[in-house]
Amino acid sequence: MTSLQDFYPDSYAHCHGCGRLNAHGLHVQSEWRDGEATAHFSPAPYHLSMPGFVYGGLIASLIDCHAMATAAAASMAAAGEVPGVDTTWRFVTASLHVDYLRPTPIGVELVLRAHATEVGARKVLVEASVTAEGVECARGRVTAVRLPAHMGG
Amino acid sequence: MTSLQDFYPDSYAHCHGCGRLNAHGLHVQSEWRDGEATAHFSPAPYHLSMPGFVYGGLIASLIDCHAMATAAAASMAAAGEVPGVDTTWRFVTASLHVDYLRPTPIGVELVLRAHATEVGARKVLVEASVTAEGVECARGRVTAVRLPAHMGG
Repeated sequence: MTSLQDFYPDSYAHCHGCGRLNAHGLHVQSEWRDGEATAHFSPAPYHLSMPGFVYGGLIASLIDCHAMATAAAASMAAAGEVPGVDTTWRFVTASLHVDYLRPTPIGVELVLRAHATEVGARKVLVEASVTAEGVECARGRVTAVRLPAHMGG
Repeated sequence: MTSLQDFYPDSYAHCHGCGRLNAHGLHVQSEWRDGEATAHFSPAPYHLSMPGFVYGGLIASLIDCHAMATAAAASMAAAGEVPGVDTTWRFVTASLHVDYLRPTPIGVELVLRAHATEVGARKVLVEASVTAEGVECARGRVTAVRLPAHMGG
């Protein structure tokens, strides 16, 4: 299965959160289906806040990159392009809000789901959730802005 | 100079963002003076979003840990304890909001400043800013909640 991040232009594939060309990165990979993006991520043992629980900064990072891919896919779909086939549009984060609903257990795979709630010409609003073993642990609201075309957007 | 994080109990010093006992962590260190916490952080070359700029997830992580230390220090000061001398109280993040005001340049030291805007019995609100070479690049609003005493708060 290919991800939306596989289709970022090389020049924008260095992101620490989701860039396939960042050897030290997290490599978030988001798949698009029926208006929703899904990502699976297994935190490393050192990605903890306190023993047993995932670091909130990691959760914010996962939401950030997953939301950018979601914004791209939703915009592309609205414009008649095919997310996961055509080159993924490049968005940047204008604002990121995360509500930590409960401690997120470490040692299990996290599932991120996100969808766009508003798709504008340049600005897209995204809502995301992070679940562990079926329990929602965090929720995100992200404002994404498309990069100008000359910057790879 | 010692940091607030130097005075977290060992059992809470494993955080990926600020734990002195996390070998793979970011080691955010916050100093408290006159009601404000300051931290200095130099992102690694691989902490990029795109070439030339810092990854937003890293900025969120820095704000997160710096805000928790700020919440602790402000609460301790209000209770007559001495931040940076007495054991640092342990807070967790209830919500994190980051506004990315402009791209943050990589390759320079970032300066974080934060202060509490509201100190409750358990809940503390914190505002934070991230500057690079004197220019504010990001701003955070964080809600911190003190851990119950039996969990190390």
